[in-house]
Amino acid sequence: QGILERLDAGEIVIGDGGFVFALEKRGYVKAGPWTPEATVEHPEAVRQLHREFLRAGSSVLQTFTFYASEDKLENRGNYVAEKISCQKVNEAACDIAREVANEGDALVAGGVSQTPSYLSCKDKAEVKAVFRKQLDIFMKKNVDFLIAEYFEHVEEAVWAVEVLKESGKPVAATMCIGPEGDMHGVPPGQCAVQLVKAGASIVGVNCHFDPDTCLKTVKLMKEGLQAAKLKAHLMSQPLAFHTPDCGKQGFIDLPEFPFGLEPRIVTRWDIQTYARKAYDLGIRYIGGCCGFEPYHIRAIAEELAPERGFLPEASEKHGSWGNSLSMHTKPWVRARARKEYWENLKPASGRPYCPSMSKPDGWGVTKGGRELMQQKEATSEQQLKELFQKQK
Amino acid sequence: QGILERLDAGEIVIGDGGFVFALEKRGYVKAGPWTPEATVEHPEAVRQLHREFLRAGSSVLQTFTFYASEDKLENRGNYVAEKISCQKVNEAACDIAREVANEGDALVAGGVSQTPSYLSCKDKAEVKAVFRKQLDIFMKKNVDFLIAEYFEHVEEAVWAVEVLKESGKPVAATMCIGPEGDMHGVPPGQCAVQLVKAGASIVGVNCHFDPDTCLKTVKLMKEGLQAAKLKAHLMSQPLAFHTPDCGKQGFIDLPEFPFGLEPRIVTRWDIQTYARKAYDLGIRYIGGCCGFEPYHIRAIAEELAPERGFLPEASEKHGSWGNSLSMHTKPWVRARARKEYWENLKPASGRPYCPSMSKPDGWGVTKGGRELMQQKEATSEQQLKELFQKQK
Amino acid sequence: QGILERLDAGEIVIGDGGFVFALEKRGYVKAGPWTPEATVEHPEAVRQLHREFLRAGSSVLQTFTFYASEDKLENRGNYVAEKISCQKVNEAACDIAREVANEGDALVAGGVSQTPSYLSCKDKAEVKAVFRKQLDIFMKKNVDFLIAEYFEHVEEAVWAVEVLKESGKPVAATMCIGPEGDMHGVPPGQCAVQLVKAGASIVGVNCHFDPDTCLKTVKLMKEGLQAAKLKAHLMSQPLAFHTPDCGKQGFIDLPEFPFGLEPRIVTRWDIQTYARKAYDLGIRYIGGCCGFEPYHIRAIAEELAPERGFLPEASEKHGSWGNSLSMHTKPWVRARARKEYWENLKPASGRPYCPSMSKPDGWGVTKGGRELMQQKEATSEQQLKELFQKQK
Amino acid sequence: QGILERLDAGEIVIGDGGFVFALEKRGYVKAGPWTPEATVEHPEAVRQLHREFLRAGSSVLQTFTFYASEDKLENRGNYVAEKISCQKVNEAACDIAREVANEGDALVAGGVSQTPSYLSCKDKAEVKAVFRKQLDIFMKKNVDFLIAEYFEHVEEAVWAVEVLKESGKPVAATMCIGPEGDMHGVPPGQCAVQLVKAGASIVGVNCHFDPDTCLKTVKLMKEGLQAAKLKAHLMSQPLAFHTPDCGKQGFIDLPEFPFGLEPRIVTRWDIQTYARKAYDLGIRYIGGCCGFEPYHIRAIAEELAPERGFLPEASEKHGSWGNSLSMHTKPWVRARARKEYWENLKPASGRPYCPSMSKPDGWGVTKGGRELMQQKEATSEQQLKELFQKQK
Repeated sequence: QGILERLDAGEIVIGDGGFVFALEKRGYVKAGPWTPEATVEHPEAVRQLHREFLRAGSSVLQTFTFYASEDKLENRGNYVAEKISCQKVNEAACDIAREVANEGDALVAGGVSQTPSYLSCKDKAEVKAVFRKQLDIFMKKNVDFLIAEYFEHVEEAVWAVEVLKESGKPVAATMCIGPEGDMHGVPPGQCAVQLVKAGASIVGVNCHFDPDTCLKTVKLMKEGLQAAKLKAHLMSQPLAFHTPDCGKQGFIDLPEFPFGLEPRIVTRWDIQTYARKAYDLGIRYIGGCCGFEPYHIRAIAEELAPERGFLPEASEKHGSWGNSLSMHTKPWVRARARKEYWENLKPASGRPYCPSMSKPDGWGVTKGGRELMQQKEATSEQQLKELFQKQK
Repeated sequence: QGILERLDAGEIVIGDGGFVFALEKRGYVKAGPWTPEATVEHPEAVRQLHREFLRAGSSVLQTFTFYASEDKLENRGNYVAEKISCQKVNEAACDIAREVANEGDALVAGGVSQTPSYLSCKDKAEVKAVFRKQLDIFMKKNVDFLIAEYFEHVEEAVWAVEVLKESGKPVAATMCIGPEGDMHGVPPGQCAVQLVKAGASIVGVNCHFDPDTCLKTVKLMKEGLQAAKLKAHLMSQPLAFHTPDCGKQGFIDLPEFPFGLEPRIVTRWDIQTYARKAYDLGIRYIGGCCGFEPYHIRAIAEELAPERGFLPEASEKHGSWGNSLSMHTKPWVRARARKEYWENLKPASGRPYCPSMSKPDGWGVTKGGRELMQQKEATSEQQLKELFQKQK
Repeated sequence: QGILERLDAGEIVIGDGGFVFALEKRGYVKAGPWTPEATVEHPEAVRQLHREFLRAGSSVLQTFTFYASEDKLENRGNYVAEKISCQKVNEAACDIAREVANEGDALVAGGVSQTPSYLSCKDKAEVKAVFRKQLDIFMKKNVDFLIAEYFEHVEEAVWAVEVLKESGKPVAATMCIGPEGDMHGVPPGQCAVQLVKAGASIVGVNCHFDPDTCLKTVKLMKEGLQAAKLKAHLMSQPLAFHTPDCGKQGFIDLPEFPFGLEPRIVTRWDIQTYARKAYDLGIRYIGGCCGFEPYHIRAIAEELAPERGFLPEASEKHGSWGNSLSMHTKPWVRARARKEYWENLKPASGRPYCPSMSKPDGWGVTKGGRELMQQKEATSEQQLKELFQKQK
Repeated sequence: QGILERLDAGEIVIGDGGFVFALEKRGYVKAGPWTPEATVEHPEAVRQLHREFLRAGSSVLQTFTFYASEDKLENRGNYVAEKISCQKVNEAACDIAREVANEGDALVAGGVSQTPSYLSCKDKAEVKAVFRKQLDIFMKKNVDFLIAEYFEHVEEAVWAVEVLKESGKPVAATMCIGPEGDMHGVPPGQCAVQLVKAGASIVGVNCHFDPDTCLKTVKLMKEGLQAAKLKAHLMSQPLAFHTPDCGKQGFIDLPEFPFGLEPRIVTRWDIQTYARKAYDLGIRYIGGCCGFEPYHIRAIAEELAPERGFLPEASEKHGSWGNSLSMHTKPWVRARARKEYWENLKPASGRPYCPSMSKPDGWGVTKGGRELMQQKEATSEQQLKELFQKQK
């Protein structure tokens, strides 16, 4: 059954987790470029991570094609501008995902994300051509459906959806925005409307913000669609980091990004709370993005097991709500083998010299920059950059 | 070259990281039992993790035989008491470690750890027989050297070392103790002396405490050996969690153990500090235990690259001190591409409702228990248990 | 010169600090009732506190008549329902304030606050009669102007202003509300408009929220007045506690209220920041409420000394920005004798087992209560109480 | 009855709180010099504070003669070197304390503290002459007993005790040291022994450390006296700030000293815990130092009311364990009117951008300074200063 058949039937679809962050820690992706050449260089590492997510309960395996557009790969200098490489990376990604999907009952989704072409103001045709190059490979490899994800500007996301719709396959679209909307100030509700009008059957958010914030944004999208009398399935793939302190542009502006985020990593219990809230909000495509490890995906699957009727395979190695501790020799550890314990725990950081929140960085690195941002005289990144240039 | 030749020549030996915690998050180990049946059930997952540590710079691959003694495996009920299973688990562990070690220049170390037999007061001969069963397999598979690790009682550690020495191979021994010493109150310096006298060529600590605490304990071991005019190489494999608040028995008593430890996870920069301090203290076998992911091991290898003269393979995907951010489009992210930034960062937890430290749990779950512990009327766990029984 | 002459001339008027909290700590006011019988019982203590605020720079001394309405004093059971007591308390308050004001150049303001009569749904005439009883005393004692303060409902505040205006004296009115508005959901801008229309020449907020939150509320009031083309002077008398985590009803719902607020106490430097921001926002009557000690008021006076042209008397015992440390024997203490040091300090709590924020209490003490509040099905306290009753 | 009669009879003697900090906040003492000229300049302020402590339960009123030695007053430049001033300050302090003591049943204690003469290496005779000048005034004014307090070096404390003993009046002696001992490295136990041998009938600690740390130090003193078979009453007057993070020299080295200590202020409930622990340890002279406000002293008196058989006067304005909240209109505030609530509350700071602990400043302001201190190559401040000079 395809993605829409499943969602239309009321099934809960569980996404996968964050490849670039997980593989960065495993030694196969470079922070900064964040490009997925590992599909060619170290296919076994990519395959293993897919397998872990499948085992944890993912209903969908996304091809590891984040930032795998030709312009991005060239831009980041990983491939000496050889065209073959972009093709290789994307083809290998499809092959690996399909191989692992076949080990279970998962769908393969081909994914595209925002491009340097758009940010450097290339025109619509040029940007679309970039997406079309990846789409051609996805069609050749016959992925099950398509995802346009990690877009900061709804305009570019719409272009991506339009290209992907040319394929006739179902299209999902998620933006990396918060409740304040996209970088040009388009609010989430309007973003959702534009994406659905462009052809997306599933809309939502991914990355940049923690689960709570993402759910707020999807709620706004839902309300926007309702107001416009449009129908679409909802999707959510947040960070697995607590980011209550971040600004409009998300976790990238936090001083801890990307090498000091550890104290922010969410627990499996945080994820169970997230999964339940997402479900209650009507979201049926529930997954994760950067920071989501296999055990986080498993937590979604365990929380929603009553609704789905089954546990994921990896739950053979996990007791619900800590019950695998019930045989521990120490009575106070045994006392942790229950839901109330983990639900109410406020976990300590072990870092008494660190604060609990940070001020996001921003244009304040030069005099007056942060003020501009705070005064919101500039509502888009472009405007901010201009103001920023002017005052230099 | 063998482990002792390397250490005697002044080489820095880098250990590997924590298998049970990493594989628990990947879905292959069950928290609570913590047993390594994955070597038989999912060898590809174990192999991949070995490979990541090798790539990160590990000079030694430990067989994934933690808690793989026959009594433990039976005790935890994973194998329906079939003897073959203990053998299979250990053999598979050896095969996998050797296969990956051969992909690089690493040594394979066979490892044994503390046993239920000792805790349930079996006699010396019985406990030794348990170790000998694993040793036989290690000898058959011809590992390069042996490690007795994760012992809370020096008496049992000594018995383990005595058994392992029968093989004629070099033996390392690490205890999971802090500066207060073992569970019978033997201080670290005396533990080290006993272990060396029993035949260990390398001594130190692993698990249960954070890097800072482990280094304090190793320092006490070093001083004990110096006072006794004994020579041995020093070894350190701490947790990758901050645990300034834990008591004598380490992180197991922290309320966050084992499912809420995320905010305590150390950064790569914390590890670089640890590696440097360990080196300055004279430790030459430097690795990690629970919580250590491949990127933590890489951080050891990067910090000590000047001394070693080379970077690990995985550094192709990692810029030193954040320099991979130097091309970022945002100026304030580019500003993070330097050592001073990450050295001085006090990373926030994003958890304003959580404290920074916890009170360890303890016998206080029943009235008076914690008081007993605090008054130190009882110096060993056994005494505590007795006092605990009495007051019920 | 009267209060309006001063404000009209552009003068900065500095209010005084929080009497009930300061005198509670000194042993003369009971938390819970918070009534000011100390004016009769211990006039020397009240006099001394007035004197300290005068010395710290207060331009106005408020009579210590908070919660000194007859219905409140009776309600709290302090006076065995003797009418003479209400009169005595208010008269003594006026005498003490005038005595100290005459020691300097300060004005005396007679103050009324919200009444139990209103909360128990007495009608307008009855509530007004309560205010009129206090006003009679203020007129007899010839205070310089009048303040209606600490109102949660704009309706009652308007009634108070109407009564006070009968006197012909200038009237200031402050509500203890946050940016979400009063307990019936009237937004701050509308509250300000109603108060000015009722006759208040000065409007703003006091109590319940920290300086930052109060300034946000006053900003909304200012915008409301501008939109309505009304003119009034602005006034701000916040808490001296950090309360970023409190809900609509302010610090009373924080679990720390009122006996565990110590870690939230603001520093003198926080107050300097507040004074500057208040000034920049156009507020010219700048004071404090609960938690404000004399040194906090002095901090306002010191921050705005350049604009006012003089320092308060108490600055003879205070070096600007820590410069009294410049002679310390320890070099690292001398290094604290500068503005940058104190401006940038993030002061530690010394409480590693405590969080940095709390969840406010609420109707959640019984099942469903907090949910009601969060869903905002109830917009007033009254409605909440009704819903709360219903579900029992 | 005199102080020793009371203590010998098993009575609990409650000290008073911290004058210099309380009066700094009220505007009468300058941080940095910390001298008590307010006794002459603003006697009403000093009198009021004495009265509040008396009312809160203090059995002893200390003359406000901290840092009132002639050399100190001259050194700090407050008095243009006129000899008469030192005399006036001390005489006025005695008169005020006696006046208020007569309002109740309190004793007056004349106090001396460490001198600049000692720190600048004047000889024993010269230093003793300084103490004697103050003693002459105390004798003329006929105080009830004498206290030598706030000494960092036991040698100087012994000299002070010897001088005070010349009077024939009982002498108490407290040092501002922690468990590590005095600045020359003399451990607390030995300090206590020397003080008792010099003639002190009561020994203990004051200032520099929080209640927990002070109790540890007094415990060491008690053990030292027991080992030496000496008898003395024990006394404790700690800070009312949490300082778990401070080093050997106490809170002066904390970056928050003295103008950012607010988040560290202890609650009344912390004080009740302290009073109970002090009592259980055998301490019978229990008071406070810097940070102790009248309500903190009241908390000691309330905690020990069962043992003493009476409540202090100020408890008329304080319900035990929050019971004055039992009539509050909000049910969740009423729920706070009980002991368990306040005992278990972990109060939040409202400061999510601040850490919970700080690193103390130290010699590290110049290169290598802190390292010296940490390596403890220098065991006394003098040695540290010499090392510090050398490396410049």
